[in-house]
Amino acid sequence: MECYLDNSATTRVLPEAVELMNKIFLEDYGNPSSLHNKGFDAEKYIRSARDSFADFLKCGKNDIIFTSGGTESNNTAIIGAAIHYGSRGHHMITTRIEHAAVSAPMKFLESRGWQIDYLDVDSTGRVSLDQLKELLREDTVLVSVMHVNNEIGTIQPIAEIGELIHSTAPDCLFHVDDIQGFGKLPLIPSKLHIDLLSASSHKIHGPKGVGLLYVSPRTHISPIIFGGGHQNGMRSGTENVPGVAGFAYAASEMYKHMEENQKHFKELHDYFVSEVTKLDDVTVNGSAEFGAPYIISLTVKNVRAEVLLHALEEKEIYVSAGSACSSNKPAVSATLKAIDVPRFALDSTVRLSFSAHTTKEELEYTLDTLKELVPTLRKFTRK
Amino acid sequence: MECYLDNSATTRVLPEAVELMNKIFLEDYGNPSSLHNKGFDAEKYIRSARDSFADFLKCGKNDIIFTSGGTESNNTAIIGAAIHYGSRGHHMITTRIEHAAVSAPMKFLESRGWQIDYLDVDSTGRVSLDQLKELLREDTVLVSVMHVNNEIGTIQPIAEIGELIHSTAPDCLFHVDDIQGFGKLPLIPSKLHIDLLSASSHKIHGPKGVGLLYVSPRTHISPIIFGGGHQNGMRSGTENVPGVAGFAYAASEMYKHMEENQKHFKELHDYFVSEVTKLDDVTVNGSAEFGAPYIISLTVKNVRAEVLLHALEEKEIYVSAGSACSSNKPAVSATLKAIDVPRFALDSTVRLSFSAHTTKEELEYTLDTLKELVPTLRKFTRK
Repeated sequence: MECYLDNSATTRVLPEAVELMNKIFLEDYGNPSSLHNKGFDAEKYIRSARDSFADFLKCGKNDIIFTSGGTESNNTAIIGAAIHYGSRGHHMITTRIEHAAVSAPMKFLESRGWQIDYLDVDSTGRVSLDQLKELLREDTVLVSVMHVNNEIGTIQPIAEIGELIHSTAPDCLFHVDDIQGFGKLPLIPSKLHIDLLSASSHKIHGPKGVGLLYVSPRTHISPIIFGGGHQNGMRSGTENVPGVAGFAYAASEMYKHMEENQKHFKELHDYFVSEVTKLDDVTVNGSAEFGAPYIISLTVKNVRAEVLLHALEEKEIYVSAGSACSSNKPAVSATLKAIDVPRFALDSTVRLSFSAHTTKEELEYTLDTLKELVPTLRKFTRK
Repeated sequence: MECYLDNSATTRVLPEAVELMNKIFLEDYGNPSSLHNKGFDAEKYIRSARDSFADFLKCGKNDIIFTSGGTESNNTAIIGAAIHYGSRGHHMITTRIEHAAVSAPMKFLESRGWQIDYLDVDSTGRVSLDQLKELLREDTVLVSVMHVNNEIGTIQPIAEIGELIHSTAPDCLFHVDDIQGFGKLPLIPSKLHIDLLSASSHKIHGPKGVGLLYVSPRTHISPIIFGGGHQNGMRSGTENVPGVAGFAYAASEMYKHMEENQKHFKELHDYFVSEVTKLDDVTVNGSAEFGAPYIISLTVKNVRAEVLLHALEEKEIYVSAGSACSSNKPAVSATLKAIDVPRFALDSTVRLSFSAHTTKEELEYTLDTLKELVPTLRKFTRK
């Protein structure tokens, strides 16, 4: 039985989204900028996608910028804000557990003279509002806090953070990396004082190579890619029409089934966690109360994560070691360090991440396999 | 008979490339950064594509950066060079007839204090080596000259420009926007002293949303998108595996058939030009000697380009007015102005662009249609 439990790394594309993209590749392949009806037909897909996302995010159609993916969305939010608001200040705040697509552009800004403050997190991975309040300054240009952590699933108190920024530093922008939450846990940016929100297609059964950035009407970031002035000048380059249409299709399926998916995720999560923690020295990281139920960070004491990953792989169970979004190099996880796990956990932790199509049978099989493998693997581990 | 003659705006995707992408969407959908074999299988596509492009461009595998398209490639080359080499100088040189994906990042740099010099072109659209020699300075960081102009098809003297830069300002980088030439007219960067070369997938029957940037071994640009360190840190973000594979497939078809395609383009071009110029007051812009045979810029006196475009569209013939890469706004063409066409030509010029699949029959039909339409349309034109 194949069990793909690495859905926070990437997902299988929905067959119906593939069909739609095929129609665009082969028939409606025009350039949306062309003035003839081949262009017009192509543009319709973009417009319709824009309408869908505006509906999901309860925002205006022009508040959506399509990008090449979550990484570009995060970079556009952070660097685009730095370029536009650089005269207001050179200070931003983020957390110690952001994905590299946030922390790396922050480091780039640091190299250009910006001051970046990093919020600590508690042992469940949550930031503290008090610390944010202390760090917020009149010249803080932007605060970037992820919605759902990609490694341990912790959900940040986005509403409270938005409220705090809004009430104490109203000129400061609030960016949310929602790449692991979009389509699974609803966020309405305008209700939560979110100015910028990043989402990605390939985490929700859409194609790779496409994402979006929500930009609130009050926010004026600079583009970071310049050219023909597409998308109101905010992101030049011929629109990835099939990608955008496939993304919109996938998102609409996620939104259509959001409630039942949440219930399904919760059932899978609770079943798996209750069973897996019966194993000796197997623990779950993150927040029991504020965790996304589709991400499980599992520490298996005295088994190296990579060894476990490959042993599971032989049984057709696919999980990840670390976040698996960072190009093959299994570095020590900043997130695990930040939540202060015991030292041994740093290289004995794997991540399982579910999709709406994950079944209880798959988890039963995974549990059985773990029960069989873990004691054996431990025998061979140097302690 | 449907005649899609707007292939320099975008092309139909090859059915075989679509098939390949479908396999990736539905089966080999892993994240190339994942450590299990689902990731490994996905990475193979990227590696194989890299090998193909290295073969086509006669360069090292690590000299290729995959991007989200030609616009991002051009921006990465120009802004990436500006970030990395900013301590060497703040001067770049480009031409007056670049695509907006080059001229817009140049304007961005101007707004950040850079000095940009613009090369004039003659009436055929070619730059002058003498002027380039005059403008080159010791602190010139980069010269950007397109290979094939997107509106009039003029081919620049890339070899001579490369030689001139190499001999007079060897530290200066040479960037070539090859978006309209790649796969159709061969360029070997290392032979022509090209340091950076941009190409796009959707101009050669690959999918939209993917492109590449060649970076020579001596060149150290900064990334403009930061994150997980993918592609040796040069372009973070989960690789668009299906897009890259589809692009590589399309490029391999172009390279496999390059000679026959060139012959085919030449035949189409010579036939069409000789026939169309028999019409009263219809002229072809650009260079007879140094023009890409698959782009024809046609000035039809006393007929507005948009009127002609829509009249042709009713006969299922698709052409463009202006370059059609610039988001719906038919602005006055900087290229046509730069080659100093008569004033009336500025809004009486359309572009026809062929693909390898364009047939002589399609052009016969187009010529017949023009013969019929043009006199009628002229009757209704206010002179």
